[in-house]
Amino acid sequence: MSQLESILEIVVRSTEIDVNGHVNNAKYVEYLEWGREAFYEQAGADYATLEGQGVITVTVNLTLNYRRECCQGEVLTISTRPERLGRTSFVVRQEIKKAASGELAADATVTMVTIDVQTRRPVPVPKILAELFG
Amino acid sequence: MSQLESILEIVVRSTEIDVNGHVNNAKYVEYLEWGREAFYEQAGADYATLEGQGVITVTVNLTLNYRRECCQGEVLTISTRPERLGRTSFVVRQEIKKAASGELAADATVTMVTIDVQTRRPVPVPKILAELFG
Amino acid sequence: MSQLESILEIVVRSTEIDVNGHVNNAKYVEYLEWGREAFYEQAGADYATLEGQGVITVTVNLTLNYRRECCQGEVLTISTRPERLGRTSFVVRQEIKKAASGELAADATVTMVTIDVQTRRPVPVPKILAELFG
Amino acid sequence: MSQLESILEIVVRSTEIDVNGHVNNAKYVEYLEWGREAFYEQAGADYATLEGQGVITVTVNLTLNYRRECCQGEVLTISTRPERLGRTSFVVRQEIKKAASGELAADATVTMVTIDVQTRRPVPVPKILAELFG
Repeated sequence: MSQLESILEIVVRSTEIDVNGHVNNAKYVEYLEWGREAFYEQAGADYATLEGQGVITVTVNLTLNYRRECCQGEVLTISTRPERLGRTSFVVRQEIKKAASGELAADATVTMVTIDVQTRRPVPVPKILAELFG
Repeated sequence: MSQLESILEIVVRSTEIDVNGHVNNAKYVEYLEWGREAFYEQAGADYATLEGQGVITVTVNLTLNYRRECCQGEVLTISTRPERLGRTSFVVRQEIKKAASGELAADATVTMVTIDVQTRRPVPVPKILAELFG
Repeated sequence: MSQLESILEIVVRSTEIDVNGHVNNAKYVEYLEWGREAFYEQAGADYATLEGQGVITVTVNLTLNYRRECCQGEVLTISTRPERLGRTSFVVRQEIKKAASGELAADATVTMVTIDVQTRRPVPVPKILAELFG
Repeated sequence: MSQLESILEIVVRSTEIDVNGHVNNAKYVEYLEWGREAFYEQAGADYATLEGQGVITVTVNLTLNYRRECCQGEVLTISTRPERLGRTSFVVRQEIKKAASGELAADATVTMVTIDVQTRRPVPVPKILAELFG
């Protein structure tokens, strides 16, 4: 694990399971968001801090491979690492693994843009976040 | 619109809005699932019918571009059209548009696999679904 | 239906179904919130208008009876009518019915408080909302 | 804490926050469900085991008081203790507390019924669950 990678551990909860008896495909996308928040927080860039600077992060592209079904009670780890830093955007690589077996449940590349909370227009990635990209 | 494209109209609900005041990125993925269900249903392949044949559809890849923010009360249309049919998988193209302006809010390419509800292994796409691919 | 009652019609979506094959108990609570938004909106008191007055509504008590299971694709109506108006709170009665049969799926009594969006302290119910209570 | 009370600790995640900047009222109801699952599991009555006996638990009444707002990143404890056992139903008392301060965020009384997974009719509470009521 690189110095800037973050790891979040979660437990699959009952309401995340759908009619097929496994975690719904949209819930994986929530898990990824939780992982990104943990990634920001390790740099002190939690939601409130960024918003205090007038900036929020929004998803512009998501490429997600679903590898394995996940079930209620399973412990998952969501890893997030910096991939590429642009002027008003950045890209992270994320993986969801089963903690018990180490098997990959999903992997994703996510492109985020930083926007001004008032104008909703792209603004340069705040220094506090940019530093996560080394 | 091709003969086999389906269009589902929805209204953005309050609990779909996140702390940023817009539809959460994971909710777009739920919207896409709702759109695919409408697509299957126009062929009579609703969830219960497919499950009665011992088959469920699961997402294996999602490539999703977020184009515009959506807000509470907005009417959205979710279009789904067949892109490519494999032996145990298929690909659909989906778009989410704002009904009032016609503006694109998101577009996605989604790869689905049909699996046996018991063995969880891929099985050939049922005829009822395959026919949607002309 | 009294003049001030509101009726919202919805369709049960796939991601609202849980592992038991029916709408999850927490989703009923979302449905009720959607119904209350419709109730406020008929008075011109949509979320943005209230927030523009510095006020948000928050739930303080929920008493909810679940009467019938609901399934994917079912059309439901959510009715909301004024029950009692306090100084900084109000109570609404809500019902969720199956549109096809008229059967009651759930009924609830919900107590809401109006709070200041900054101080988070209770404030008098805005006139625009109070008028819904006749 | 009585011998049969269960305590589940969770962290509030970003997608559980709504437009008002706090945990949405319906999410509290999901938290309560997670707490009940933990309560069942301490008796070995996890979802799969009960379903293997042909039984699922469904909510029939929920009385819930919201006491305090909860925010992203807060650690919460969800306690569940047995209140009353009927023939085909049971009642639990649940509390959600802020781990840092011990403050009560919500408390609820929830009535559950055990139903047959096929017939959807009430059946006697399975022994494995009934034992939780001493």
